[in-house]
Amino acid sequence: MNVELKGTSIIGRSRGDATANTFRAFDPASGNEVEPAFYSAALGELERAATLADAARIPFGNISGHERAVFLRKIADNIEALGDTLIQRATLETSLPNARFVGERGRTCGQLRMFADLLDEGSWVDARIDHAIPDREPLPKPDVRSMLRPVGPVAVFCASNFPLAYSVAGGDTASALAAGCPVIVNAHIAHPGTAELVGTAIMDAARECDMPEGVFSLLFSSGYDIGQALVKHPAIKAVGFTGSRRGGRALMDIAAARPEPIPVYTEMSSVNPTFILPSAIKERGDAIAAGLHASVTGGVGQFCTKPGLVFLPKDADEFVSSFNRSIEKTAPSPLLTGGIRSSYVAGSQKRAAEVGKVVANEEADLPGFSVNPSAFETSAVEFLNTPDLNDEIFGPTTLLIRSNEHEELLSIARSLEGQLTASIHGTEEDMKEYADLIAILETKVGRLIFNGFSTGVEVCPSMVHGGPYPATSDGRSTAVGTRAITRFARLVCYQNFPDQALPDELKDGNPLGISRMIDGEFMKA
Amino acid sequence: MNVELKGTSIIGRSRGDATANTFRAFDPASGNEVEPAFYSAALGELERAATLADAARIPFGNISGHERAVFLRKIADNIEALGDTLIQRATLETSLPNARFVGERGRTCGQLRMFADLLDEGSWVDARIDHAIPDREPLPKPDVRSMLRPVGPVAVFCASNFPLAYSVAGGDTASALAAGCPVIVNAHIAHPGTAELVGTAIMDAARECDMPEGVFSLLFSSGYDIGQALVKHPAIKAVGFTGSRRGGRALMDIAAARPEPIPVYTEMSSVNPTFILPSAIKERGDAIAAGLHASVTGGVGQFCTKPGLVFLPKDADEFVSSFNRSIEKTAPSPLLTGGIRSSYVAGSQKRAAEVGKVVANEEADLPGFSVNPSAFETSAVEFLNTPDLNDEIFGPTTLLIRSNEHEELLSIARSLEGQLTASIHGTEEDMKEYADLIAILETKVGRLIFNGFSTGVEVCPSMVHGGPYPATSDGRSTAVGTRAITRFARLVCYQNFPDQALPDELKDGNPLGISRMIDGEFMKA
Repeated sequence: MNVELKGTSIIGRSRGDATANTFRAFDPASGNEVEPAFYSAALGELERAATLADAARIPFGNISGHERAVFLRKIADNIEALGDTLIQRATLETSLPNARFVGERGRTCGQLRMFADLLDEGSWVDARIDHAIPDREPLPKPDVRSMLRPVGPVAVFCASNFPLAYSVAGGDTASALAAGCPVIVNAHIAHPGTAELVGTAIMDAARECDMPEGVFSLLFSSGYDIGQALVKHPAIKAVGFTGSRRGGRALMDIAAARPEPIPVYTEMSSVNPTFILPSAIKERGDAIAAGLHASVTGGVGQFCTKPGLVFLPKDADEFVSSFNRSIEKTAPSPLLTGGIRSSYVAGSQKRAAEVGKVVANEEADLPGFSVNPSAFETSAVEFLNTPDLNDEIFGPTTLLIRSNEHEELLSIARSLEGQLTASIHGTEEDMKEYADLIAILETKVGRLIFNGFSTGVEVCPSMVHGGPYPATSDGRSTAVGTRAITRFARLVCYQNFPDQALPDELKDGNPLGISRMIDGEFMKA
Repeated sequence: MNVELKGTSIIGRSRGDATANTFRAFDPASGNEVEPAFYSAALGELERAATLADAARIPFGNISGHERAVFLRKIADNIEALGDTLIQRATLETSLPNARFVGERGRTCGQLRMFADLLDEGSWVDARIDHAIPDREPLPKPDVRSMLRPVGPVAVFCASNFPLAYSVAGGDTASALAAGCPVIVNAHIAHPGTAELVGTAIMDAARECDMPEGVFSLLFSSGYDIGQALVKHPAIKAVGFTGSRRGGRALMDIAAARPEPIPVYTEMSSVNPTFILPSAIKERGDAIAAGLHASVTGGVGQFCTKPGLVFLPKDADEFVSSFNRSIEKTAPSPLLTGGIRSSYVAGSQKRAAEVGKVVANEEADLPGFSVNPSAFETSAVEFLNTPDLNDEIFGPTTLLIRSNEHEELLSIARSLEGQLTASIHGTEEDMKEYADLIAILETKVGRLIFNGFSTGVEVCPSMVHGGPYPATSDGRSTAVGTRAITRFARLVCYQNFPDQALPDELKDGNPLGISRMIDGEFMKA
């Protein structure tokens, strides 16, 4: 499908204005701007989008799960119908390979259909019924029923590093729509063309499925003003964000300072500590070094699950040499934006000043936003004494730390901030010997990995992509997997309601045939 | 059982110091201080409690659910073993009737045992297993498993109005301990003796059950400094609070401003709008007026679910007269604290200045903290034009508002802040006619009640005691019922873990025999 990019925001069923405030995407490989111009939304356009979303809140929240499932599948179909137009634009705006976007499109549409299946099955609402006992003494027991209901309009911020799977129709949008919440997306400045293509796919799906107009809007913006105004807007009842720690914390603070504070799900920074134990090095050092290299440099190191801290035995010279050689031999690649490149270069320079041994090539004279991968090395003592070494450097770099001391590893684990993941490479025997290390790491992360790497997040019902602050703003939940739908839902209880006034999920006859808890007993559908 | 009150904080297994900063409880009926003195905890004592809680975090989080269930039941047994000593002290410190505390003790111990049963059953952890598919193309699928794990040490603030059921061993403490979190309680200044008695019951239970020392501490404080320091302390990972909007918001703001923001569950203010439709007045006006009177004046109006706004048809003169007469005839009763009395008097005076018709007796010359119940009345137009009329006045008073216009009621519903509850009195036909009203109310509340009053919260699996801000800080969850355990839990995922290193809940053989989701399919135990 060939779609001409207009560059204007999407406000419900109509397009925004061609405002005076324009910006363009960049080709990261060359650093040159690419056409066409995109127009930053005016505050009046945000207001229109918010008013529409507010008006859509009740009607969209009250249509059936099956109808929402049809809508989600239609979005997936429409994204696929964009064909190569979408893949080519995403490639142009990111310099990431074609195949990456074929895969990421699959994941994006897979997520939409996963939530559609969840809605069709219907039991996700945690429906519970406690029947009345009118003659109970000393007081009669009322009829009480409850289930999860949509939280209201959600603001979604696109991620730089997942132009499809965590952007306009990404995980947050899919789970919010699935929960019954209208969505207003703040497009990422780095891939507005990709955003517009996906946005039109959603707008068309909303029209084709006869959804309330305000169910979806997409706002372009060259600065922070629109995003901040969105989080402040009283119609917005929750926020989803993937990005930097500074940006995420700023949104958390804005949301917490509102007259009515709202839930915020920001996914921010994680250095994904990776512990490679002596037995693992001995058994398969080469394979681990190769896997680590792939995990550090994949997607030009721009994954939130990139291993940024790697703990090794003191005698792992061969492993370190092999890993460093592979880093040195890796060709430079462009990062997604000039800003990410600047942060990478500044972060690397700061780290080079902090730690001794460094494997890093010169960044000068590389084209566009390109950088070389790098590796740093330091001692456990130095690491424990230098809190800044915990800072995430977004891009293809990692920090190797040698330690042989069990107690020292425990101290390091205790010193860590919240993380998305931690990985342990070793034997099953090691898992017993290091049970204390694992118990500490468990309090710090959302996901523990044995003999694997943290990059690559399986989309499945049991996945947890989250973790204590600063990995995310809210370590209770997950951004990936079916459980993400509960982020945008809240419990509502109906007491002594007549059957006809209850949602179908709570009616006596169970017309939707879902699993429910009845009088404390779980009844499988 | 006769227990001599010491007045010192409980720090793990030992007692705090008799510091220089003392305070005493009051007898609200007389307004006189009662013995003994209580000693405000020093910051060093808080530090000790926090250090102990932090040390207990992993061991207490890793004992089995069955062991935690034994502990919870032991707490309930020990509270019951306090016998009349507890009831008498609670009565002395609150001037609420004996029978109230016999009931509230039953609820408190019932909650502890409810969570114990939930732990013994074990399925609350939402265990999920997705098996590996090593030969999947293009990438192998890893083995992924996840479940809810404790969030870490929790700070619990006692409620003025529930000295047992929402205080030292109340809902927040029970659900936090059930989830596997150590608890540090900030006692309420109004009932320190009750707090100490219950605190010793928990301390003894912890020792008898051989729990880690830091699993429980109780801090006395005459001011806000200890509570604020507790919420700021890095060892604390979540907060539970029941109290005023100002106090709750202050704790929310402190928690949000921490270097590591943490989840806060504050239950604050709700005016519980009650809509009495014409049909209901016609059918059973007298019964509703009597029920409303009981709901407004029960517990001297000091329930978070007290109906503070009552919407009536314009011709409900007889109903209003009957209700007002019953308010006028109600004897004065003491409020819980001098502060609550001052707020009640000030709020009533402000309201009297705002609205025309008032049923209120003089407060002068009443003994102790006593006040008269009161009722105010205003028009819908005046209500919509005076946002302050939404303010909660904690105590035995309510505001009656007349309106016959369907559209006007919708405007009123739209104008409401977040609430714990909303009630509709009418016929089943009304539920159809006013479906639009109910749809709006649903977005504002945690619980909708048909033909009933909002006071009296059934403790059962489907109960939702929560609601959007300012009813609570976090409208996604509930403070009452089994689901409250998830407040103090977070998801943790284990990837490719050997069976022996997994928690029992996730082991292949399902040694605990719990319900789990396996490869996307719910498997009932």
